[in-house]
Amino acid sequence: MRVELLTVGDELLLGDTVNGNAAWLGQRLAAIGVEVTRSVVVGDGFDPVIEATQDALSRADAVIITGGLGPTYDDLTRDALAKAAGVRLLSDPALEQRLRERAVASGRPLRPMALRMAEVPEGATLLANPVGSAPGLRMELPGGVAYALPGVPHEMHAIMTDLVLPELRGRVTGDVPVRRTLRTAGVWESVLATRLAPVEALDGVRLAYLPDPAEVKIRITASGPDAQVLLGEAEELIRDLLGTAVYGAEDDTLDRVVHRLLAERSANVAVAESLTGGLLGAELTLMAGSSATFAGGIVAYATELKESLLGVPRELLDRQGAVDPEVALAMASGVRERLGASYGLAVTGVAGPTPQDGRPVGTIHVAVAGPGGTSTVESPVLPVRGSDGRERPLIRRMTVVHALDLLRRQILGAAATHEWSGRRGDREETT
Amino acid sequence: MRVELLTVGDELLLGDTVNGNAAWLGQRLAAIGVEVTRSVVVGDGFDPVIEATQDALSRADAVIITGGLGPTYDDLTRDALAKAAGVRLLSDPALEQRLRERAVASGRPLRPMALRMAEVPEGATLLANPVGSAPGLRMELPGGVAYALPGVPHEMHAIMTDLVLPELRGRVTGDVPVRRTLRTAGVWESVLATRLAPVEALDGVRLAYLPDPAEVKIRITASGPDAQVLLGEAEELIRDLLGTAVYGAEDDTLDRVVHRLLAERSANVAVAESLTGGLLGAELTLMAGSSATFAGGIVAYATELKESLLGVPRELLDRQGAVDPEVALAMASGVRERLGASYGLAVTGVAGPTPQDGRPVGTIHVAVAGPGGTSTVESPVLPVRGSDGRERPLIRRMTVVHALDLLRRQILGAAATHEWSGRRGDREETT
Repeated sequence: MRVELLTVGDELLLGDTVNGNAAWLGQRLAAIGVEVTRSVVVGDGFDPVIEATQDALSRADAVIITGGLGPTYDDLTRDALAKAAGVRLLSDPALEQRLRERAVASGRPLRPMALRMAEVPEGATLLANPVGSAPGLRMELPGGVAYALPGVPHEMHAIMTDLVLPELRGRVTGDVPVRRTLRTAGVWESVLATRLAPVEALDGVRLAYLPDPAEVKIRITASGPDAQVLLGEAEELIRDLLGTAVYGAEDDTLDRVVHRLLAERSANVAVAESLTGGLLGAELTLMAGSSATFAGGIVAYATELKESLLGVPRELLDRQGAVDPEVALAMASGVRERLGASYGLAVTGVAGPTPQDGRPVGTIHVAVAGPGGTSTVESPVLPVRGSDGRERPLIRRMTVVHALDLLRRQILGAAATHEWSGRRGDREETT
Repeated sequence: MRVELLTVGDELLLGDTVNGNAAWLGQRLAAIGVEVTRSVVVGDGFDPVIEATQDALSRADAVIITGGLGPTYDDLTRDALAKAAGVRLLSDPALEQRLRERAVASGRPLRPMALRMAEVPEGATLLANPVGSAPGLRMELPGGVAYALPGVPHEMHAIMTDLVLPELRGRVTGDVPVRRTLRTAGVWESVLATRLAPVEALDGVRLAYLPDPAEVKIRITASGPDAQVLLGEAEELIRDLLGTAVYGAEDDTLDRVVHRLLAERSANVAVAESLTGGLLGAELTLMAGSSATFAGGIVAYATELKESLLGVPRELLDRQGAVDPEVALAMASGVRERLGASYGLAVTGVAGPTPQDGRPVGTIHVAVAGPGGTSTVESPVLPVRGSDGRERPLIRRMTVVHALDLLRRQILGAAATHEWSGRRGDREETT
């Protein structure tokens, strides 16, 4: 089944907004075996929407249109669909009633133009919008089916999930490829690919590597009549080959995995930051309920604060500078003590663009201090090219990921790293 | 002048990546008066690229193609352009030489397939790539001009900025609309729009409001023969009407403005955070050189840490809970003292999804303690709808913006807010 996407909106052509809706749709459609063959953006104009809709259906089985269903004068999708189908626009009394009721309930008057949201092309099916005012529409047109959805992301997601994706899934014939995504952290993509050569060699199995800073998602796709069995075998083999480099699957995130591991042990963590400025604590407080497992943190950005706030010995700072594995270890135990947490997690490093204390841009040390006086430090090698300033946010992000991953492996008792991963104890090799 | 965009890449249709290149191009083209009339994404296929290129040039004067110029087997843009123009692909000896030299310099062998990056459609003009391997291409085709650029963002930006945007600007005829963007923080879009009615009424001037959490960018567009004069007048009027609600223009950001104001006064700031978890310190360390004006911070996520780390009186916390203007003030002076900074900036509030200490989701208090014992607290009203958890990151982001904005106005001596903005002293009114 082939589908094209049509996103309507001047703000997209002006670059004021990035097309997040098309990316979301692409992901969800791929997951159910529907191929997106083209994605088009047009402005808020009557003719471009008609033309692009008809053009899409000259090639694909269906077109999913987002945007242009709102209450303002430039919301023209309903009108365009009616024209494309050669039908009238009729006002739906039940819809109109509901619009009036919502206006009363929200205490805002209903502008006359907003009644356009009650207009429905004759012959269209309404797709109920559980979270907003304008329903989606489904229309049979020459060449295929057009689905029209609101542009507001969470409204579009809700209607797609409730109604459109199930319908499209039902229309996918033949063996649907099955997919599974595993999530890894702290290992270079090239190293993973080399290690997973035996999996790539399996018939009917394909691997895609989706990198993020210091993380790689591995998407396994299996096809054919035994796809589900193949998928399971591929996953098992990957987990065998990668060990604890795999931290989760699908939508798992490192912060949530860390929170879960801490909660299972009735433990918590405090963070000591420098180059990250607070990003590590921010990541550990993304999750609702994180207060159960995250105590707080100290951002010792200025070097002297590492001594005054964390107890890092002045003598050590004078001798080694602030960017040193011993300093990271002292920061970790310092914050653990001062905040009374089970674990202390610390980072120090050089985000750039200039070197610091004689250390080059991209040098980082991440350390964990745990119960019973245990402590570990690692110095991951980051893929840094040049120092024009563009590296800075990437280095900070990679430091957060490496820190969370070290804490995860430390809690699991798996801090000792795999020789195949190029990581060793307290220093990483370049692969 | 009308241009269409064509982005090539399977990963975009799969939704693995969002189309940042198209957004960047849309912005830069709009800024020079070039209208983008359509934006299309196709996969890494020979025929779709040819077809979409010819289709674009049947409507527009030029098409800008990004992607498909790399060294792998699915990089087909050069081949597609040669086919569309009906010409051969020839290997350029100078390009081939340079590819070989780069490979030697990087210590990586040059794979045979990579030599495809030295192939040039006959008649094409090379667009030098100052930062990568593959040059861009410019080709005359039936219907208009095709520009082909690498998909790697900073490479594409460099070639566009150096060569393509200047050429396109030269082709724009008639009066080019001129634009200016002003940046405001802490005031609701609806309040701004009401206040700026006199500007909207000016002939030849158009305003667009581009909202972000707790910020609104106001884009002024002026057209006609006196566009530049009109633009200046509109900006002056907006600044008169909005006063200190305008914090900057164009690409200014609140964190940079704050750093500049602190540096001008040889001052620095320390932050005390709770619901934001470290986001405020992270924002204040985005900028290279921020250590001159940012000392560090304390993330007192657990309530008791507000007492133990910041000196907030236990009695106050017991009486009022952690989410209170007095607590914010105590946190601000506490961190200012303990970190020895000129200013202390503190936030406390309820990010959700559950209320805290009897306060509803979205309650926030931001406070600044300054030299000479000055201190101010504000309690901005946030546009929070429901508490299904989606609010959490938005509330945290808005808190960071309100905090930075309060610090900015406090440093400027402009903490007293404008009655028109709906803000008052230490509590905001709902507008």
